[in-house]
Amino acid sequence: MVYVTRREVFSSAHILANPNWGAEQNSEIYGKCANSNGHGHNYTLEVVVGGEIDINTGYLIDLKILKEIIFTEVISKVDHKHLNYDVDFMKNLIPTTENLVVAIWGQLVNKLPSGKLISVKIFETENNYAEYKGE
Amino acid sequence: MVYVTRREVFSSAHILANPNWGAEQNSEIYGKCANSNGHGHNYTLEVVVGGEIDINTGYLIDLKILKEIIFTEVISKVDHKHLNYDVDFMKNLIPTTENLVVAIWGQLVNKLPSGKLISVKIFETENNYAEYKGE
Amino acid sequence: MVYVTRREVFSSAHILANPNWGAEQNSEIYGKCANSNGHGHNYTLEVVVGGEIDINTGYLIDLKILKEIIFTEVISKVDHKHLNYDVDFMKNLIPTTENLVVAIWGQLVNKLPSGKLISVKIFETENNYAEYKGE
Amino acid sequence: MVYVTRREVFSSAHILANPNWGAEQNSEIYGKCANSNGHGHNYTLEVVVGGEIDINTGYLIDLKILKEIIFTEVISKVDHKHLNYDVDFMKNLIPTTENLVVAIWGQLVNKLPSGKLISVKIFETENNYAEYKGE
Amino acid sequence: MVYVTRREVFSSAHILANPNWGAEQNSEIYGKCANSNGHGHNYTLEVVVGGEIDINTGYLIDLKILKEIIFTEVISKVDHKHLNYDVDFMKNLIPTTENLVVAIWGQLVNKLPSGKLISVKIFETENNYAEYKGE
Amino acid sequence: MVYVTRREVFSSAHILANPNWGAEQNSEIYGKCANSNGHGHNYTLEVVVGGEIDINTGYLIDLKILKEIIFTEVISKVDHKHLNYDVDFMKNLIPTTENLVVAIWGQLVNKLPSGKLISVKIFETENNYAEYKGE
Repeated sequence: MVYVTRREVFSSAHILANPNWGAEQNSEIYGKCANSNGHGHNYTLEVVVGGEIDINTGYLIDLKILKEIIFTEVISKVDHKHLNYDVDFMKNLIPTTENLVVAIWGQLVNKLPSGKLISVKIFETENNYAEYKGE
Repeated sequence: MVYVTRREVFSSAHILANPNWGAEQNSEIYGKCANSNGHGHNYTLEVVVGGEIDINTGYLIDLKILKEIIFTEVISKVDHKHLNYDVDFMKNLIPTTENLVVAIWGQLVNKLPSGKLISVKIFETENNYAEYKGE
Repeated sequence: MVYVTRREVFSSAHILANPNWGAEQNSEIYGKCANSNGHGHNYTLEVVVGGEIDINTGYLIDLKILKEIIFTEVISKVDHKHLNYDVDFMKNLIPTTENLVVAIWGQLVNKLPSGKLISVKIFETENNYAEYKGE
Repeated sequence: MVYVTRREVFSSAHILANPNWGAEQNSEIYGKCANSNGHGHNYTLEVVVGGEIDINTGYLIDLKILKEIIFTEVISKVDHKHLNYDVDFMKNLIPTTENLVVAIWGQLVNKLPSGKLISVKIFETENNYAEYKGE
Repeated sequence: MVYVTRREVFSSAHILANPNWGAEQNSEIYGKCANSNGHGHNYTLEVVVGGEIDINTGYLIDLKILKEIIFTEVISKVDHKHLNYDVDFMKNLIPTTENLVVAIWGQLVNKLPSGKLISVKIFETENNYAEYKGE
Repeated sequence: MVYVTRREVFSSAHILANPNWGAEQNSEIYGKCANSNGHGHNYTLEVVVGGEIDINTGYLIDLKILKEIIFTEVISKVDHKHLNYDVDFMKNLIPTTENLVVAIWGQLVNKLPSGKLISVKIFETENNYAEYKGE
């Protein structure tokens, strides 16, 4: 069993706020992340796929195909978008890195032609990232 | 003459659109950057100061002081903000990296206690950056 | 179950030497790392916490709180310090990256308000790092 | 149990093509990677070793020794070489990152004086990497 | 006057050898870089353009257009190619980083629709790079 | 005229303190950098050389030779050393990044066999660096 990772980058805006709370409570919990005009990030996405090497190609998965799946299911929906307003698979979710990484897993898990989804990581800044392994 | 550079990071949202143009023209010029809900970036700022080394301290400038000036004049005004709506020194400017880097130069150029502002750089993504040297 | 990682950086001096050995033996085992005046590093620390997402906040753990715990228990004690002389939790330990990463785990493991400590990594240089998972 | 990772870099040329296929089929599967004059990469190799800390040295493994083993068994054989023509342990293998990472595991797994080989990673570009854990 | 930089990455093979010299002399001058089967790199290219900001767009140059020019004139000709055999603008040049950076300048200098070419940089590895400013 | 840059890394300890001042004044000026047991950094050194390309080799300078000069004149004297106690060319200098970069220039400027020293940069952390151009 071998693991292959593909890295992609996207740029999005977001606001962290619980719609059931008032501005004061959101500011207390989320600090400057609750700014109502939003802020944004260059997010780095890493998708890890695992499985056996195809003896004919030497590939676990053709990265051009993996890249296309990630583009269709994730990047085209989040890049240069606002995560609170523009993204169907984030509807009704507070766009924390934790919720985002689980939602992206959901976008990808049934779309892989070969290999199995092992892990999705999202780096929000150079100092913070979240990972989900489907457990 | 020696040069000292301080790097800082901030996270902001922005929209690229000329208010004198319609949605179609903005979309033609700015592509996905014109998305009306905005998107965002982790911006990296590099500020270069030049001058002579103080013989008593061995410093061109105390980096704690340079950091405070950058925080007060720039970071506190742009970090976790929307560059189109929240930032006084970006009023009436389309928030391209080019306009942003010139505006940040204007925030800093008269505030340095020692040394002279030499260059301001803004990295919008890992692939694009702008620099202004006051020329 | 989701994992969240926080990265911090600190700068310390250290000397690698076993106090039970003479200078010659220490030089043989530790090479230039045994230099008796010490040398130093910019250490990068990565702390991984795992657990369930809080449905109200969308967070596994508030990173401001995680950052404060890491600062109080680790960074304030090692940053701009000498690991052999200044750090109580490194007393009687040779400050290799391996011993350092296990000791930092000990500083953090009982202090987390939510989530469970999963892994601590220390990068000593861009080419070497150690990880401890509490096993 | 603690884990120690050593990073090394090497520069090699390669061609992706299955010798049982014609140029057209290879071009269809491997795209521009099938260019018959070859292309190349700066590969980054990460070797992870796990085990217990030696109480006398504070080391899992002396990194100078780990570095020498990696140099002798891997780097000296692949650095500034062509993976299709110059490397004995890649004979009869299509030099995909997946096949390369498994072959490098085979070079290292029985050569470690202390600690156990846990993982080998190869980054082919900043966006793609493969990992093998001997499973 | 403002400066804008665009970063691109390409992967190529090359051999360093002077065709007027024998294998022994080439090996003496170029060491392992003279390996006759070639080796390769992930090259990073940085192109710096300077000029005035267009008051209507806030751009010095539309990066989509700059990216297209770099792709057409450089990346499409060198990426996944062998610099000694496949690249017309490197004909009769030893493909050192120095010769490559000057040749890429030549490819770009007359193709920019706005702004002026200021600098071209090529990083061959993380430790070595060359720059040309047209002087 | 072309420019070639070589990057090297070294790890040193240092203390920032003016020997003419008492502990209190040093602590006021240098903060935690004045800790009397010292602290340390992984310093990154970049040396830029400029000149004309040798038509026979395609090189401005053979990087193996540049690397040897940097090793002999700088790295061997500062790596795994204490900048205040172990380094002859830092005698009587407060080891700020500014003083260090000027002193390293002095070590290199007359030792280059071809090409001219253009710039020396020292990165003390990922956020701070100093540059000297001999002006």
